[in-house]
Amino acid sequence: MFTGLSAFPLTPLHNDAVDESAFVRLMVRLAESDVDSIAVLGSTGSYPYLSAGERRRVVQLAAASAGSKPLIVGVGALRTSEVLAHVRAAEEAGAAGILLAPVSYQALTDDDVYGLFREVTDSSNVPVIVYDNPGTTHFTFSTALYGRIAELPGIASIKIPPVSAAAAPERVRAVRAVIPDHVTVGISGDAAAAGGLTAGCDAWYSAAAGTLPGEMVRIMRAAQEGRYEDAAAESARMAPLWELFAEHGSLRVIAAVAEQLGLAHRNCLPLPVHGLGVRERRHLAGVVEKLELA
Amino acid sequence: MFTGLSAFPLTPLHNDAVDESAFVRLMVRLAESDVDSIAVLGSTGSYPYLSAGERRRVVQLAAASAGSKPLIVGVGALRTSEVLAHVRAAEEAGAAGILLAPVSYQALTDDDVYGLFREVTDSSNVPVIVYDNPGTTHFTFSTALYGRIAELPGIASIKIPPVSAAAAPERVRAVRAVIPDHVTVGISGDAAAAGGLTAGCDAWYSAAAGTLPGEMVRIMRAAQEGRYEDAAAESARMAPLWELFAEHGSLRVIAAVAEQLGLAHRNCLPLPVHGLGVRERRHLAGVVEKLELA
Repeated sequence: MFTGLSAFPLTPLHNDAVDESAFVRLMVRLAESDVDSIAVLGSTGSYPYLSAGERRRVVQLAAASAGSKPLIVGVGALRTSEVLAHVRAAEEAGAAGILLAPVSYQALTDDDVYGLFREVTDSSNVPVIVYDNPGTTHFTFSTALYGRIAELPGIASIKIPPVSAAAAPERVRAVRAVIPDHVTVGISGDAAAAGGLTAGCDAWYSAAAGTLPGEMVRIMRAAQEGRYEDAAAESARMAPLWELFAEHGSLRVIAAVAEQLGLAHRNCLPLPVHGLGVRERRHLAGVVEKLELA
Repeated sequence: MFTGLSAFPLTPLHNDAVDESAFVRLMVRLAESDVDSIAVLGSTGSYPYLSAGERRRVVQLAAASAGSKPLIVGVGALRTSEVLAHVRAAEEAGAAGILLAPVSYQALTDDDVYGLFREVTDSSNVPVIVYDNPGTTHFTFSTALYGRIAELPGIASIKIPPVSAAAAPERVRAVRAVIPDHVTVGISGDAAAAGGLTAGCDAWYSAAAGTLPGEMVRIMRAAQEGRYEDAAAESARMAPLWELFAEHGSLRVIAAVAEQLGLAHRNCLPLPVHGLGVRERRHLAGVVEKLELA
């Protein structure tokens, strides 16, 4: 289950509270789509902005609406004891996997991060995805640290940061060289997905698929069937979306897409993170129309 | 009160709970020292690692033990609504000022950060220190943004990041050029303090002074009395401490100093942030002895 397309839904807010009906609507769309798993409370799901109570509620709603899809739950937090509480909540909801990012305020050492993954794998049998997202966690994994952590029992997958199509084959080889065979490698950064999958990644952890599952499934299936040129062409067709991701970050763009499609109330992100401005939304509306999204 | 030496105490933990007696002991040392103000729940006070309840309790303990010193309270958090709740708790405890850092997970825009400071100054009359700490918040203020924010009513001071003694005069001039006269400029990064004060900073926001007030007061008083060479010499005497700060970050080092001096239990930092290792502690013990700290 740590292969294929994993879709990361937003956790839309409305008036500074979780918009439960919008969240469930996004979940049901994903449950009815062809994605391979659903990962709630990832970066796209705004996990670090939510209280423990809000996170627990989101996990319960997700478990009730995921249908037959395996459910992955983000458990990252600044303090180890908080992480362990989120792990317990995910376990209780029957999560098939957990996603753990080494969120930082004080810069973390390799030993700090190894210690965190060891505590989590010691305390739970739920399979763990190592969530390497240096743009938000400000922690940079070395390849050697991947290797150390992947030896821990329960580590199931490593979500690697985006890498160019040209550099992907060597990067995937280098990661595989230090991890056991049962640990999968997943690409992130949706614009990099076709290249990463062509280079042999087993999984794609996708922000865009949380709101636009159909479009991303087309890229994934092409790659899975060995039609790498089709995967690249499908991804190239999405270039106007990837350009917006690069400019504003995927979260603000995908939130605006969801708002535009009527899947979330306007301003669904947690303040102080503001949504796109009026001009950017006008441009985005053109992209949504041109690409016939959703 | 947004001038002079502001001391930032640790919030020591013990078994993953706030060590209230150790915290009060640190507070009382500061209340009885010659520092000019006390700033709790700064980066040195581990504010982002603590729950809302823990933070409220720390503020109450601080208010009860600060004596005649003005009390400044860190209110930073990832979500604006959380920040506003911390502001209310600080107000209720009678804080003389609040310290606001634009903590980030998703990268923030200038407009996001301006909006945060506007919401806080709209909602409270407690004077605000703009906490610019890019090493932990991962947000970089432009000088122009200082100017925009400093125009808001209630902005009292700007805590600027460390700057070399050579570059400090020009930097302080550039900041002063964009802010109103009533807004003070405070240096941070203790190794940079003597240079910053010599360049005309009004305040020094000090991690070291939270645990070692006497040593830092000597540097501050020399600068305030215009004895800039004495300030530089006192700071130079502390070079072995500053070298450890540069290598391990001030928090881990000052926590180890507090532990070494019996002011906190061993391992007083919030996991996953580990304290210094055995070898580093041995080296630190030599520095503490050589500098005759505390």
